[in-house]
Amino acid sequence: MHYADRLAEAISIRNTPAVVGIDPVLEKLPPRFRPTAPTAVEAAAAIERFSFAIIEAVADLVPAIKINSAFFEAFYEHGVAAYFRTIAHAHQRGLLVIGDIKRGDIGSTSEFYARGHLAPPAFADVSAERLPDAVTLAGYFGFSVVAPFIEAAKKTGRGMYVLVRPSDPHSDQIHEFGGVRPLYWHMSEMVKHWGAGADLIGKCGLSCVGAVVAGRDAAEAHTIRNNMPHTPFLVPGFGAQGAAAAAVSACFRRAGDGAIVNASRSVIYAIEQPRWKERCGDDAILAVRLAAEEFAAQARDMARAATQ
Amino acid sequence: MHYADRLAEAISIRNTPAVVGIDPVLEKLPPRFRPTAPTAVEAAAAIERFSFAIIEAVADLVPAIKINSAFFEAFYEHGVAAYFRTIAHAHQRGLLVIGDIKRGDIGSTSEFYARGHLAPPAFADVSAERLPDAVTLAGYFGFSVVAPFIEAAKKTGRGMYVLVRPSDPHSDQIHEFGGVRPLYWHMSEMVKHWGAGADLIGKCGLSCVGAVVAGRDAAEAHTIRNNMPHTPFLVPGFGAQGAAAAAVSACFRRAGDGAIVNASRSVIYAIEQPRWKERCGDDAILAVRLAAEEFAAQARDMARAATQ
Repeated sequence: MHYADRLAEAISIRNTPAVVGIDPVLEKLPPRFRPTAPTAVEAAAAIERFSFAIIEAVADLVPAIKINSAFFEAFYEHGVAAYFRTIAHAHQRGLLVIGDIKRGDIGSTSEFYARGHLAPPAFADVSAERLPDAVTLAGYFGFSVVAPFIEAAKKTGRGMYVLVRPSDPHSDQIHEFGGVRPLYWHMSEMVKHWGAGADLIGKCGLSCVGAVVAGRDAAEAHTIRNNMPHTPFLVPGFGAQGAAAAAVSACFRRAGDGAIVNASRSVIYAIEQPRWKERCGDDAILAVRLAAEEFAAQARDMARAATQ
Repeated sequence: MHYADRLAEAISIRNTPAVVGIDPVLEKLPPRFRPTAPTAVEAAAAIERFSFAIIEAVADLVPAIKINSAFFEAFYEHGVAAYFRTIAHAHQRGLLVIGDIKRGDIGSTSEFYARGHLAPPAFADVSAERLPDAVTLAGYFGFSVVAPFIEAAKKTGRGMYVLVRPSDPHSDQIHEFGGVRPLYWHMSEMVKHWGAGADLIGKCGLSCVGAVVAGRDAAEAHTIRNNMPHTPFLVPGFGAQGAAAAAVSACFRRAGDGAIVNASRSVIYAIEQPRWKERCGDDAILAVRLAAEEFAAQARDMARAATQ
């Protein structure tokens, strides 16, 4: 089944396009997860336990989670093993998984990133459950970055989100380069084109080649959205990174579909916010659940607002 | 000691700016390294053995090797473990190591990529030997990508090479975007600026913030080189990717320093070329050594040509 159709089904079942982002930081783990002076092996085990607890807390609330590879790679191969086990665990709990890896290299190299991060495993000791349903990619080497990922995606009902408009204002010095139609617009044209083949579009009318588009402001998001009608968006930055609801809304299609919205820190470290701390005491995972519930409702509202 | 000074010293000892790139592909391993129907664990062990053999063959010929992460990530955490062990082994044999990881994400995420790939390890079970001396980065999120890597580099005499002008013509659809002063030029201006702080420049006059600049043609390479006098270049694409000697030469400073030149496939799979096959029979590692010797001399000549 096509990635976009699998995702649409999951969104329909959970009735929200909210995605919880798992960015586990050792120093920020709740006390019961945090080891004292750990080895890298112990540290990786600790972030894995925390990630599993988040999955348990949100599995019935959202269609998908996004796992950020950087936070696992901080613990070397031990963290990478935890990354893959976390994906497998999320799959067992019925969640779709986006591997936030932002890889990007020339074609002859990208082929190997695709093998390691999206393609069906070629080894008896590696379960397909360990591979995510979609990954994020940096497409700045052009089509040759995405081509091997598209091949893998077609075979297995998987997908990808290519960076188009990042959430971080620091990126503006690059993405607003080039005048009235700046780099982010150019990237949006590329990504639209790369995902346009009839064999890449699902029943829901969306491609397996998506875009990461931050809702920077509503007008800009509308313009990008309207120019890429068949491209599914992954919208980062809701919550801690401060994207406004109207700008996120503008990333959905008029039918209220075509986007998923991610919140990471504002959900997984909800206990750091006084209002959740007050309600949940020391139960950081209860705070994750309540914050995810609230976020799921907000994302539902943002999608609905696009239909009005 | 500053990264650029350590590298300059190593180049002076080996009398060549040649870097051998390790891109191990399971299907291309010489028969004595290639397992039949391996598990991922066995496959990772096989590419590790091949990588170690290459290191043994070239350790006294070149100042540094470049290890491409993608080819190790193809075997999941097992490959990542092999990547780090290969770095440690190269260090034990007196080589500098460039980790070709091309990571790039917003600052709050990039901090964790820096921890996992360049910073001094914070764990008792991880030796600093396992971390490379420099990494490649994709700077398309702006300064926030490189900032945490610069912090790590300053502390430990390490460095980085930010993508400026890739070797793959597919990347032109992005890097030639923007008119007369296209994206690659804009990136070169950024990278120059990011590495310009007096505390980032070594005794040899080069920064710890370098650039990946393919020698696409001599005129272009000259122009980029002259505009970035304090930026060390990593020049990919010699050999298999077909960069011409004159274009590579143009990446050096007039003193014959300021660049290292990488060849991967043309050296590590030298046995696939009839002229090496003829001389070396089935000894693929002897072919690596002879090809590396030839490449070391070619790189020496290309550096010298810049002084004339």
